[in-house]
Amino acid sequence: MRTAIVREVGLRDGLQSIATIVSTAHKIEWIDAAYAAGQREIEVGSFVPARLLPQLADTAEVLAHAKTLPGLVASVLVPNLKGAERAIACGADLMVLPLSASHAHSLANLRKTPDEVVAELARIRAARDAAGSRTLIEGGVGTAFGCTIQGTVAESEVLRLMQALLDAGADRVSLADTVGYADPASVQRLFEKARTLVGDRLACAHFHDTRGMGLANCYAAWQTGITRFDACLAGIGGCPHAPGASGNVTTEDLAFMLERMGVGTGLDVPALLALRRRVEGWLAGEALHGTLWQAGFPKALAFAAASAAA
Amino acid sequence: MRTAIVREVGLRDGLQSIATIVSTAHKIEWIDAAYAAGQREIEVGSFVPARLLPQLADTAEVLAHAKTLPGLVASVLVPNLKGAERAIACGADLMVLPLSASHAHSLANLRKTPDEVVAELARIRAARDAAGSRTLIEGGVGTAFGCTIQGTVAESEVLRLMQALLDAGADRVSLADTVGYADPASVQRLFEKARTLVGDRLACAHFHDTRGMGLANCYAAWQTGITRFDACLAGIGGCPHAPGASGNVTTEDLAFMLERMGVGTGLDVPALLALRRRVEGWLAGEALHGTLWQAGFPKALAFAAASAAA
Repeated sequence: MRTAIVREVGLRDGLQSIATIVSTAHKIEWIDAAYAAGQREIEVGSFVPARLLPQLADTAEVLAHAKTLPGLVASVLVPNLKGAERAIACGADLMVLPLSASHAHSLANLRKTPDEVVAELARIRAARDAAGSRTLIEGGVGTAFGCTIQGTVAESEVLRLMQALLDAGADRVSLADTVGYADPASVQRLFEKARTLVGDRLACAHFHDTRGMGLANCYAAWQTGITRFDACLAGIGGCPHAPGASGNVTTEDLAFMLERMGVGTGLDVPALLALRRRVEGWLAGEALHGTLWQAGFPKALAFAAASAAA
Repeated sequence: MRTAIVREVGLRDGLQSIATIVSTAHKIEWIDAAYAAGQREIEVGSFVPARLLPQLADTAEVLAHAKTLPGLVASVLVPNLKGAERAIACGADLMVLPLSASHAHSLANLRKTPDEVVAELARIRAARDAAGSRTLIEGGVGTAFGCTIQGTVAESEVLRLMQALLDAGADRVSLADTVGYADPASVQRLFEKARTLVGDRLACAHFHDTRGMGLANCYAAWQTGITRFDACLAGIGGCPHAPGASGNVTTEDLAFMLERMGVGTGLDVPALLALRRRVEGWLAGEALHGTLWQAGFPKALAFAAASAAA
């Protein structure tokens, strides 16, 4: 049976884009419950200046807790070398450096050109190696399917930057539809080209559900061989620099789809729904997304086994 | 360029499952606007007793108007021979006889076993031929991916009944996930088997978006060669005999996805959104669905052309 990993990014991509500040205790509760529900990869925060994202100011503390859970890959987002030095010092298992393939979005979001971000990744790699650290480096190529500021983003530019990140020392790369512009055909096309170029070093797909195609895009990426997907519990999240980009793919909906497809995720979907209800209580007034919480499970819950036997 | 047909079923599957009664004048306005937006296949109503579905009591009148629009394929649902006789008398271009592959759902919904429905189709075919009518007969196999009453529905039973409908005289068949149980893998599996069995006589896919997989399932069916999809403007609809089966695939979201994929639909998506706003006004208080109306169009609206050039 093929398996897939649903990487929880709600604590980072989700919480960074909503106003409510979730307490450190609740974040730890979230991580513990997600771990108990079977999640083994969690992006716990971001090493950005606290004045920019006060919601994530406790990332070091949250990461320290996550590291106590056996087998959990605890990752953080790092916007630059300074953030990466903190991730290395804190012993994150993985750090994700975002790069925006849209020149305009890159300047607005990171105040650097895409190629300046590639150069930063080379400095991060040098720092990681100098420290003798085992923190993996993932280059996340965002706005890979278009951009709210610039409009179209050329596939050739996405592929060039992805290769440049690997050449600069990234251990792996991922592709993100930061603003919800992707469709299944463009996903299939770009992910196939990317896989041809870099093989299994293409490690993750990150989709938003802005125009209802989040799960369709995950399915299209899955068909090209992708087995790791970013998702946010309750579909929270977006991009503060991309107006209208509301809602990451919803963790529990994606887990349910994969399990129904017969893809092993190791996840306890009812436990994820129970966690959703807890998180919902901490985010009163925030826009949540997803469908499974409302529709419930099908009668005679089949998941993979019965589905295959039918 | 491959093309696809989005068959509007909002006037039937949508309106039959909500309490609000839309006036005949508004239905005609809907059909005219959908036609102006490029829709060329519209299910305009259902020939069921008016006491059962007062919302659709004006089907003959609505159909008579639809027939005045050049090139429009105006279809109706018929639950039995009596309904089919009315469809033939009214000169419908197409009549769809629903069959539920779930024995339990069939008894609850149609008070007949699936095989009794097959026998009814044979009588309908005889009546059609005796009348010298050109009304096409589509057998719609519902609950093809599971059932809220019975649970699992065997693929072998779905395929047997599909073939039986054709043997009994149906011109073509369709597969429907009446209650929103399908996932992309089961769609791919069943549609591939169905196509192998009956080829192009498998004419349409009908999905609900109950658990957020409506568009993913359309994409999966598209990959197996399906080029006709049922959808409801604003995602209205469901099944009165299948609790929780809320929301057909949303016409404007599906049209947008297909166009973004580079699939020609002949549809003016902004015109569909404008029509949605009008229909919304007639359905105050009803639950509507869909995402595009909220997210809007991507900047530098690309659709097929720019997407392929990127």
